[in-house]
Amino acid sequence: MSTTYAYAATDASAPLVPFDLERRAPRAHDVQMDVLFCGVCHSDLHQARNEWKNTIYPLVPGHEIVGRVSAVGPNVTKHKVGDLVAVGCMVDSCRTCANCAEGLEQYCESGFVGTYNAMDRVDGRVTYGGYSTQLVVDEAFTLHVPASLDPAGVAPLLCAGITTYSPLRTWGAGPGKKVGIVGLGGLGHMGVKLAHAMGAHVVLFTTSPSKIEDAKRLGADEVVILKNPEEMEAHANSFDLFINTVAAQHDLNPFLSLLKRDGTLTLVGVPEHDHPSPQVFNLILKRRRLAGSLIGGVAETQEMLDFCGRYGITSDIEVIPMQKINEAYERMLKSDVKYRFVVDMDSLRK
Amino acid sequence: MSTTYAYAATDASAPLVPFDLERRAPRAHDVQMDVLFCGVCHSDLHQARNEWKNTIYPLVPGHEIVGRVSAVGPNVTKHKVGDLVAVGCMVDSCRTCANCAEGLEQYCESGFVGTYNAMDRVDGRVTYGGYSTQLVVDEAFTLHVPASLDPAGVAPLLCAGITTYSPLRTWGAGPGKKVGIVGLGGLGHMGVKLAHAMGAHVVLFTTSPSKIEDAKRLGADEVVILKNPEEMEAHANSFDLFINTVAAQHDLNPFLSLLKRDGTLTLVGVPEHDHPSPQVFNLILKRRRLAGSLIGGVAETQEMLDFCGRYGITSDIEVIPMQKINEAYERMLKSDVKYRFVVDMDSLRK
Repeated sequence: MSTTYAYAATDASAPLVPFDLERRAPRAHDVQMDVLFCGVCHSDLHQARNEWKNTIYPLVPGHEIVGRVSAVGPNVTKHKVGDLVAVGCMVDSCRTCANCAEGLEQYCESGFVGTYNAMDRVDGRVTYGGYSTQLVVDEAFTLHVPASLDPAGVAPLLCAGITTYSPLRTWGAGPGKKVGIVGLGGLGHMGVKLAHAMGAHVVLFTTSPSKIEDAKRLGADEVVILKNPEEMEAHANSFDLFINTVAAQHDLNPFLSLLKRDGTLTLVGVPEHDHPSPQVFNLILKRRRLAGSLIGGVAETQEMLDFCGRYGITSDIEVIPMQKINEAYERMLKSDVKYRFVVDMDSLRK
Repeated sequence: MSTTYAYAATDASAPLVPFDLERRAPRAHDVQMDVLFCGVCHSDLHQARNEWKNTIYPLVPGHEIVGRVSAVGPNVTKHKVGDLVAVGCMVDSCRTCANCAEGLEQYCESGFVGTYNAMDRVDGRVTYGGYSTQLVVDEAFTLHVPASLDPAGVAPLLCAGITTYSPLRTWGAGPGKKVGIVGLGGLGHMGVKLAHAMGAHVVLFTTSPSKIEDAKRLGADEVVILKNPEEMEAHANSFDLFINTVAAQHDLNPFLSLLKRDGTLTLVGVPEHDHPSPQVFNLILKRRRLAGSLIGGVAETQEMLDFCGRYGITSDIEVIPMQKINEAYERMLKSDVKYRFVVDMDSLRK
């Protein structure tokens, strides 16, 4: 196998720089691919800068990956050379615990193996992600990409898409259900598109009046500007479900108050400091629930991709060359992107 | 109708004192009863002392009521004179909203009418509770008492019983499920009995090693002493459900950590100050849920009484005369009761 060209963070304070690496030769069940596109997720930045205090350097981020199969191991049955494939946040798990057995590898009792910054279960080597020209992944963790979709716009579905799709499905978003999406960023804009396609009545909550028009274009039936108490009050006790994508610390009580009986406020963003305590009365008086949700399993991720293929859904993206990644990080910190950066990996191929 | 003898709080700092009142003549659907027994709930004390800042004085507490029918309105079909009946925390609701229509009157969109310290929907008079010799309640909010059970031990089922029964049913306690009950007081001891009768594996969590023996007698399969980290750790990721009855402010994270994927920590006690913030990671990493639950609807309360009749379940009680209520309040504050005081209302009859 040829040299893989990548971009890596080498310590918490330095910009990402070019980095060459050798991928393993495909094992019996491995799929080798040329990476075509890789989305840029906020957690790439968190880990590049060691904000979760667990980064192994050098770090090659990237877990929203679309590629084309370039070789397969002898036992691979799922793909053949030339297939368009995708890889998300996971490349392996124990495959035997109760959660893996149910196809919920993201909750693997032993912890799933991340696409980067994790340890391969077979050879113990650190995993390197999709900011690279080639990738080798066990077919159990690869996905089929619907031919009808733009491959660049598909990439962010692998994290931003499944992170919102999974809780929408788990808590039954669909016709007759009123779903609130909090925040219109990478995750939020996917939440709006997906909940709308599922047939739910979608209300987008944002602090920015400038986002109203865009939210409606993406599929929101209504937009509520947070901090307008009368707009909030008008929706009291009426929501079946919230997907809260905001990762900054904030008060959850205003959203809990808008849930009807048995409604659920689902958190998909992890703030650096925990949100203030939710009021117990707010939970008890309507049997409301506060929950968390983490990406989705392999089978559900394929289901999400197929759903997106059926409804023509991709992420709204801005394509950049790999060489612009550090600039993209700075713009991402200012929410200056609609709504996801995607790296065109041809920019690294030689 | 004859004079009703009662005990009332007349202001937040005074002890309860004898108080005479006139009950309304039965309306078409009303059931008039001689109160036989009334349980003493911690919320009686909260409201007698205006700790929830909404007390209307004079206040006649009591919402765990067993009585014998002494008269019925012309349209009553549910009971006849001489029947043993019960009344819980509610005596009316709007009866038309979506929640009432589903038989979940405790979540009435207009707010249910409390058995005491509330306003009657017909005549606007303040409701007086079960610390009294007679009571008049619409048959829609009265319950049948199984003949096989001790009526005094039945009284606490109307609040402590249904408050734990309802979330156990809502979140599927039963064979093959592991249920944690936090706290062994009035609510907790009912939670242990009910979860055990439902066939769940029951683990009682308490700070008091002195309660181990009693918890096992009541039906706990295991007892965990809080603050023994190794005992807690042994149960990590293993619980389907917690019913947390502790109303004092405390850290919820140790219990969240013991839930398996999709498990629920249900709060049934309202602390004066909200619990510290639960960790978002603790929710997200196993799709765990934090919820609240409030008593139960009329139909579910009847189902609970019938269930208790079938399994021979009543509350462990200490019967007192009405004249000892102030002393009982002081002992309740010190948790010096196993596990519920019940007032024998014959002590007030003349």
